[in-house]
Amino acid sequence: MPSAPSTNGFADRLHRAIRAVGSPACIGIDPVIEKVPEIERSSDPLDSLMGFSLGVISAAASVVPVVKFQSACYERFGQEGVGILASCIKKAKASGLLVILDAKRGDIGISNEHYAAAIAGMGADAVTVSGYLGLGVVEPFLRAGLGVFVLVRTSNPDGDEIQSQRLADGRTVAEMVADRVAEFGASRRGQSGYSDVGAVVGATKAAEGRELRIRMPSQPFLVPGFGAQGGTLADVQSLSDERGGGVLVTASRSVIYAFTSTNGSWVDEVRHAASAFAQEVRPLAG
Amino acid sequence: MPSAPSTNGFADRLHRAIRAVGSPACIGIDPVIEKVPEIERSSDPLDSLMGFSLGVISAAASVVPVVKFQSACYERFGQEGVGILASCIKKAKASGLLVILDAKRGDIGISNEHYAAAIAGMGADAVTVSGYLGLGVVEPFLRAGLGVFVLVRTSNPDGDEIQSQRLADGRTVAEMVADRVAEFGASRRGQSGYSDVGAVVGATKAAEGRELRIRMPSQPFLVPGFGAQGGTLADVQSLSDERGGGVLVTASRSVIYAFTSTNGSWVDEVRHAASAFAQEVRPLAG
Repeated sequence: MPSAPSTNGFADRLHRAIRAVGSPACIGIDPVIEKVPEIERSSDPLDSLMGFSLGVISAAASVVPVVKFQSACYERFGQEGVGILASCIKKAKASGLLVILDAKRGDIGISNEHYAAAIAGMGADAVTVSGYLGLGVVEPFLRAGLGVFVLVRTSNPDGDEIQSQRLADGRTVAEMVADRVAEFGASRRGQSGYSDVGAVVGATKAAEGRELRIRMPSQPFLVPGFGAQGGTLADVQSLSDERGGGVLVTASRSVIYAFTSTNGSWVDEVRHAASAFAQEVRPLAG
Repeated sequence: MPSAPSTNGFADRLHRAIRAVGSPACIGIDPVIEKVPEIERSSDPLDSLMGFSLGVISAAASVVPVVKFQSACYERFGQEGVGILASCIKKAKASGLLVILDAKRGDIGISNEHYAAAIAGMGADAVTVSGYLGLGVVEPFLRAGLGVFVLVRTSNPDGDEIQSQRLADGRTVAEMVADRVAEFGASRRGQSGYSDVGAVVGATKAAEGRELRIRMPSQPFLVPGFGAQGGTLADVQSLSDERGGGVLVTASRSVIYAFTSTNGSWVDEVRHAASAFAQEVRPLAG
């Protein structure tokens, strides 16, 4: 009998972090230079990117358990942007935050090993992954010690196109992917009962979300679409598990741009918005 | 009537490049440090990565029309790796090669715009994209002037898991994605008749490939899996269009590691292998 795969510890760390803060709130850090507050603006956009990111990290620390960096916003600036991303991840970790890199990666063979090494090397705790190539793509990420959130049901309108297609066996494509995620993640559960293999399930798809939760009882759900995209607390509640938890709710624009100050107190305003958001989703801490 | 989207010129450039060389061969550059020839090895793996990549580019120039860089192999080395990738893309372009970045990207909204800007900014001509979020993900890449190859049917064994699932309407998931690619790409055709929106279709799936070609008559197919992964010339021929073309066949390991020299003549050996490969797939130039 081959030795069963087991947890790399991510699911339990996530569970403990949510418990410690008492809220499953995740701040999405996806900075757009044009929206950076006056005082952080510089003739060098890289300085603006760094200054704004560090401010948001400072606002998020101790207020939420997790931050999620959107890789594209940093990759946009080439190698220097990638350097800033790595620095920001380190800073977030040093501030006691868990870090998800929203990179939607996924490749085959050695290429995938490289992605896993790169992302673990930057210090992230987890990564978003696309499963179109098969669920085997998550293995190198797990081996590198990362948690994985597989794209199952996304919050964008175009997501229906492929994800809502009905299979001959009655399932939608998203439900079929959900079943594979559950199957693949079943043996990777920690003491918390949660799996290191989670799923991305948008808050805007509540009815479908309930069905997906039945199919993925042990998966942490990374839930975008709350707030700015129209998802409500009730929508997210329909995604929670029998313990009333198992979700990590992300908000980005509604928090990171919640300032009017042109001076350094923008960070306090963002902290206030982060705190209000954390409070709002507190009932979903499990 | 809204103005119809039109070509950004990629399809025609690809067509001309294949015609000029007389072969639809594409060398996949996905360097693994451990396999770099003796003379390019350095105590600094970044130097090895750069030296080897430049040697392969030199071997490919004028012998094949296109090279494909595997982004993961460079991202593996963090910001310095990304810098080397950008330098290598510039060098390949300066050597007259078309460049595909195999990055399997795809996100929504502004994030996707960032990826498109980053990849176009590095000077690539085209990119591989995952369509699970909906075909709308390709738009920002097209607007940035890039050709796009959407993952439809991949050559890895796990690819069956999702791509071979049968829909209620009789199509497989891969065929459904193919139909969306054809629909989305129909209005983006150049004077060559080919579309800027292409597809990744593995050489190891010949029978399915014929069906996919019927569904995607105007799509350039980026075809991995030839050689090392077991795909034959006949397999690829089954993917070609009614003009006997429309394919871009990639080979990587079987070419880039085809050397025994420990000195600088490894480049000549790789050039020889690239030339033999280009010759082999010449019947597929269309």
